[in-house]
Amino acid sequence: MKPGPSAREGNGSEARLSRASAGRLSLYLRQLKGCVQEGLKKISSSQLGEAVGITDVQVRKDLAHLGSLGQPGIGYATDELIAAIRRALGIDHDWKVAVVGAGNLARALLRYHGFQQQGFSIVALFDSDASKIGKVIEGLTVHGPADIASVVPASGAELAMLTVPSEAAQSVADALTAAGIKGILNFAPAILRLPHDVSLVPVDLAMQLEQLAFLVQVSGTN
Amino acid sequence: MKPGPSAREGNGSEARLSRASAGRLSLYLRQLKGCVQEGLKKISSSQLGEAVGITDVQVRKDLAHLGSLGQPGIGYATDELIAAIRRALGIDHDWKVAVVGAGNLARALLRYHGFQQQGFSIVALFDSDASKIGKVIEGLTVHGPADIASVVPASGAELAMLTVPSEAAQSVADALTAAGIKGILNFAPAILRLPHDVSLVPVDLAMQLEQLAFLVQVSGTN
Repeated sequence: MKPGPSAREGNGSEARLSRASAGRLSLYLRQLKGCVQEGLKKISSSQLGEAVGITDVQVRKDLAHLGSLGQPGIGYATDELIAAIRRALGIDHDWKVAVVGAGNLARALLRYHGFQQQGFSIVALFDSDASKIGKVIEGLTVHGPADIASVVPASGAELAMLTVPSEAAQSVADALTAAGIKGILNFAPAILRLPHDVSLVPVDLAMQLEQLAFLVQVSGTN
Repeated sequence: MKPGPSAREGNGSEARLSRASAGRLSLYLRQLKGCVQEGLKKISSSQLGEAVGITDVQVRKDLAHLGSLGQPGIGYATDELIAAIRRALGIDHDWKVAVVGAGNLARALLRYHGFQQQGFSIVALFDSDASKIGKVIEGLTVHGPADIASVVPASGAELAMLTVPSEAAQSVADALTAAGIKGILNFAPAILRLPHDVSLVPVDLAMQLEQLAFLVQVSGTN
């Protein structure tokens, strides 16, 4: 697994946004969107922190990276905060995403409305199974792996989600990076080696369950 | 809405073994299993660190939580290390898991061999769709939500995976915790309020993509 860059280059206040901080910004963003839906125009750091289970000190620290937002005693304007977080996370523009592996997980991902809402469009779908190639799933034609080199650049995809079996993961990742993919969300339980300029976020579902088992165990012994 | 703290995720600092450290132990475990398959009987902290992209200082720090393992200049016995990590993570025994929501994601989870390999057995399946109730998917009969109260205790499930739509997530979580579930892996993009003795690991796939977009953006500006 490639360790994520821990700091971003930037001017003054925007410098040093860590990956952990970026994770919390994602969480605040979810909460803020809920607030907007409920018609809330202002929110304090303690309200925001309480809603997501993070201390208000940490919330203020994270939001300080975004520049001077918010007024003491009044709080943050929710719409300004949403825009600033989206900018910091790099999702103030849309991203196009390729999916490799057209099984159940891919179908679930294709039907998941959350991606589109956050500005992610799935634009290309690949599978090595000859019986799937040429079929249309959720509006996308399934292409064979040999087409990655041509279809990915044509689709404009910069990110990819890998839902292939472990043994196929590395060769698919190599083909994707050769085709210009800059970041991979990897659902295959395999450790990938990628060029240093390609980012990786592994989603190992068994590891997530292990984390849960760990928390339950710790909770039971407290 | 229930009063009190939201999730048992957050900092985890009350435990000697931090959640971040537990996450790295999971990663080492994956790597060590690969080593055993290749016939490797010993491994050094720097070999292990290099394989997973973590410094050997951090590796030694994490493994120090497990007691006195390993010998200077020789390294760790891979099988002892695997056993110690499984014990620390609470996966030296099997866990039974219920799945709520029997859509594409649930099918992918049911077919995912990684869970069984790590000691997680899916033992119960629920869905509110009347056309699915009573059907058998991957060997499990789909039960209606009203059966959670009886089927969960009978199945021995202590953990649950939630793959229901956001709007159903809280009521399902309430039913699960009332039925004795101690930990929830939540795939629904909803923030859950749980009793303080119930653990939560959220898996928000759009947030994972956001993290990837962030890393790609940071990488591109470096």
